[in-house]
Amino acid sequence: MEANAPQATAYAPSTAPVDLETHPDRYRHIKLEVDGSIAWIKLAIQEDGGLRPGYVLKLNSYDLGVDIELADAVQRLRFEHPEVACVVVTSALDGVFSSGANIFMLGASKHGFKANFCKYTNETRLYIEDATAHSGQTYLAALNGIASGGGYELPLACEEIYLVDDRRSAVALPEVPYLGVLPGTGGLTRVVDKRKVRRDRADVFCTLAEGIKGKRAVEWGLVDAVWPSSKFQDKVVERAREVAAAADKSGRKGVPLDALQPAVEGDSIRYRHVELRLEPSARMARLTVHAPSQAEALPADPSELGADWYPLRMARELDDAILRLRFNYPELGLVILETRGDPKQVLELDAQLAAHKDHWFVNEVLGQLKRTFKRLDLTAKSFFALIDQGSCFVGTLFELALAADRSYMLEDEQVQVGLSALNAGTFPMSNGLSRLQSRFYGEPERAERLAAEPRTYAAEDADEQGLVTQLVDELDWDDEVRLAIEERASLSPDSLTGMEASLRFAGPETLETKVFGRLSAWQNWIFQRPNAVGPKGALTLYGQPESAEYDWART
Amino acid sequence: MEANAPQATAYAPSTAPVDLETHPDRYRHIKLEVDGSIAWIKLAIQEDGGLRPGYVLKLNSYDLGVDIELADAVQRLRFEHPEVACVVVTSALDGVFSSGANIFMLGASKHGFKANFCKYTNETRLYIEDATAHSGQTYLAALNGIASGGGYELPLACEEIYLVDDRRSAVALPEVPYLGVLPGTGGLTRVVDKRKVRRDRADVFCTLAEGIKGKRAVEWGLVDAVWPSSKFQDKVVERAREVAAAADKSGRKGVPLDALQPAVEGDSIRYRHVELRLEPSARMARLTVHAPSQAEALPADPSELGADWYPLRMARELDDAILRLRFNYPELGLVILETRGDPKQVLELDAQLAAHKDHWFVNEVLGQLKRTFKRLDLTAKSFFALIDQGSCFVGTLFELALAADRSYMLEDEQVQVGLSALNAGTFPMSNGLSRLQSRFYGEPERAERLAAEPRTYAAEDADEQGLVTQLVDELDWDDEVRLAIEERASLSPDSLTGMEASLRFAGPETLETKVFGRLSAWQNWIFQRPNAVGPKGALTLYGQPESAEYDWART
Repeated sequence: MEANAPQATAYAPSTAPVDLETHPDRYRHIKLEVDGSIAWIKLAIQEDGGLRPGYVLKLNSYDLGVDIELADAVQRLRFEHPEVACVVVTSALDGVFSSGANIFMLGASKHGFKANFCKYTNETRLYIEDATAHSGQTYLAALNGIASGGGYELPLACEEIYLVDDRRSAVALPEVPYLGVLPGTGGLTRVVDKRKVRRDRADVFCTLAEGIKGKRAVEWGLVDAVWPSSKFQDKVVERAREVAAAADKSGRKGVPLDALQPAVEGDSIRYRHVELRLEPSARMARLTVHAPSQAEALPADPSELGADWYPLRMARELDDAILRLRFNYPELGLVILETRGDPKQVLELDAQLAAHKDHWFVNEVLGQLKRTFKRLDLTAKSFFALIDQGSCFVGTLFELALAADRSYMLEDEQVQVGLSALNAGTFPMSNGLSRLQSRFYGEPERAERLAAEPRTYAAEDADEQGLVTQLVDELDWDDEVRLAIEERASLSPDSLTGMEASLRFAGPETLETKVFGRLSAWQNWIFQRPNAVGPKGALTLYGQPESAEYDWART
Repeated sequence: MEANAPQATAYAPSTAPVDLETHPDRYRHIKLEVDGSIAWIKLAIQEDGGLRPGYVLKLNSYDLGVDIELADAVQRLRFEHPEVACVVVTSALDGVFSSGANIFMLGASKHGFKANFCKYTNETRLYIEDATAHSGQTYLAALNGIASGGGYELPLACEEIYLVDDRRSAVALPEVPYLGVLPGTGGLTRVVDKRKVRRDRADVFCTLAEGIKGKRAVEWGLVDAVWPSSKFQDKVVERAREVAAAADKSGRKGVPLDALQPAVEGDSIRYRHVELRLEPSARMARLTVHAPSQAEALPADPSELGADWYPLRMARELDDAILRLRFNYPELGLVILETRGDPKQVLELDAQLAAHKDHWFVNEVLGQLKRTFKRLDLTAKSFFALIDQGSCFVGTLFELALAADRSYMLEDEQVQVGLSALNAGTFPMSNGLSRLQSRFYGEPERAERLAAEPRTYAAEDADEQGLVTQLVDELDWDDEVRLAIEERASLSPDSLTGMEASLRFAGPETLETKVFGRLSAWQNWIFQRPNAVGPKGALTLYGQPESAEYDWART
């Protein structure tokens, strides 16, 4: 609450900040080739191209820098190449698809970075599945060599997996036997929940460092087919053409995504529609989303609006801000969500989005908003929404209040919240429910009723309908909000992370929530254990002559 | 594999072994009173009655010793008091229901014990819910004083919660603000998933150390009603009578449960039907279940068979052996599951159980088997089933092979496995699926077909149907099994725990699996974190003048 206090110096992250933006022109590790309706993502990871010094990206092993390129490629294919119906992920290296996350990078990383790195890579893999499901871009993995660890978890996120049958190339999850950690980029979950490999076979597979190849890999369901080296490339092309031919994506014109390039000044990161203000002394940040100044009328082909179109630009900015908060400002535990602008413009835009949701570009923009809100749900920070004068928490922007752990609403006749048609399920959470359904998990009929009759609500009405956490009158606003913020900022960051991971996801679980809730929680536990990261731990000693020494007690 | 090697000395657990058996005559902390169809469990925890020295059980706080009594009471009510239809859980102390798990006990405990303690207390609370759902014994919580932390998590496991309205008594989950850990005995999960409290209210509640009382507790769904002190007792009795009156449990004669008292000699723990042999040098144990020598014909009232009846006795023994393995032998990471005896007798008994499953006592026996197998699924040890000569992995005992991480079957015409009607869903896992459905999660029609036509299978047939992991011929058996065991015993215990927690539970999630998979995994992570257990951690410093100091980085 020191908004008016001068900041002596800008808040510097403890390590060089991560920049999440890139562009194919600057890719060092990935070759993105588009050939009509088929795109190729080829891993050609530069050994000396690590994001940080101290490790070598051998054998197509990856670090965050590689994954940023991968995420960028998946994203650009949706927007810039909407004519693509099939994406083949393969390797430009001979005999190796990928050996997964770089172990030396992991071994040298701090716990918090490891957790955030894994979260980001998990999100990227889920975006691949999302592109297959919702953007009509079906991903195939063409494993022209060994795919090990994270190098097999990436194919697991693809719709189909093909492996070369050369008596050498295998798929493997050697994390347990080699490193004493889990295949945590969704590997364990996807093996049994997506590929539905029999659990005892999965048990054998996940403890077999050398992996499984040939017919047995097919029989166990680890890959969809194996093809001999001589025919591999032809078979892959043939299958990609089949997949692409099944889709009709003609007449789409791609929308280039320009760089966001926010203005970073002192403790403020300013985008066009989003502003992030850091308040390190209070261990918090303020994230403000501005409404569109005027909702433009949609042209016959909405894609003509391009990357400047408010909802796309805003979603991309918000997404970038969330990622910066995760990677660059770990000590800021609380994020205040604010909105500013004219609610009418937001609702007008929502109406346009809803009316045109079947247009490919509008669908992509809504998908970008959906993924951004999910990213917020999955961020290990507390979020409080402040619904005060000048705010515009309506429709799409009300999702921010619904995603927040709490919302405080000023009792003032000018302050309103509101729903639009887009709150009814356009932006599902990872658990498959809308945020209204999650909020009213005990009263599904209320969620349905509210969604069916979208309107705006003044303070008392909003409170009665259960749409906000607490009403505060003007006299108490400053004190009440300040106390809530101070109290939150005083709590143990770890317990808040665990608490929020439970309370935010009531109800059904999905592959997504299992990856983040179950698999990642176990992995985070293991990433703390001396058996993995202690001086004699397996992760620590990987690649050294010394063997790991374990404390044998099972927990 | 040193079955024949002499053991120089018996394997001594690193701390005094935990004895999981007790009896109402020996209760120190709980008063169990049965009054017709209503039973009362009254917490009257003896401050100086801790299981280990070094802490005082003030304010009805509990340790493992208390929970063993609670579990015993819940169990005996099912079998010894089948006429009971309503169980009221309340406190014998004035103004305090319970203040939850004893913090000093937790603070002084090793990580592995904390995790196993929480697992056991979670199981007991699930057994309360199971008794309500499947034994017709509805639990009510009568909170005649403050219910805090684990002291509120116990009521959360009851069907209805009533709180005295005395302007003082509240329900609270103060773990996050006071201790920097989670309400990990199902608290977070049950608040949003069972009581379906709105997530933002749950967020406020779980960070409000003093808790919530009176009307607000009702409005938020934290309790079902509040009654003034003057009427509280009468109202509770009235409600208990209503609940009890709705059930008809006449004509049932209780079955006393005698002590198991296994013979503990050297490295062997021998029950009547179950034997546990410890092989500490190999970091493993062998758990052998013997078939009934002859399946007795069931009398008109099967409860006349009493606690000696094979399936009940065997299940109780197996349950006790599993708990001893968890608490007393943490370093033994692998358990070999063996069966011995005549498969025909097992199948005959299964037929009797299936034919009489609606009889209350048979229902209870099947429930005991169900819970025991679940306990095995949830045990952080690897299980290999060895299906060899003399084994009888059929029907109920085949659940052991299905629960195992792997099964090895000897290719020998005399060796068979088999299904009975009881494999079709009588023993669901925590995820709600039968073990056949979990195994064939990718082929539900196969699970259905196998369950619909129960029969026995010789080795090749069993392999073809996918019922075993691997066939091994006689020549290779010793080497193959030895190698598999040695390899398993060499792996990092932590990574195996995380791996098994993922691979064993494909498919749907339930409140149960969320408690063990999501909540417990996060809690285990937090239980490792310096913010909780370091020298300046909140759990460490609880009750001391010094305040906790946190590393503020969010993960």
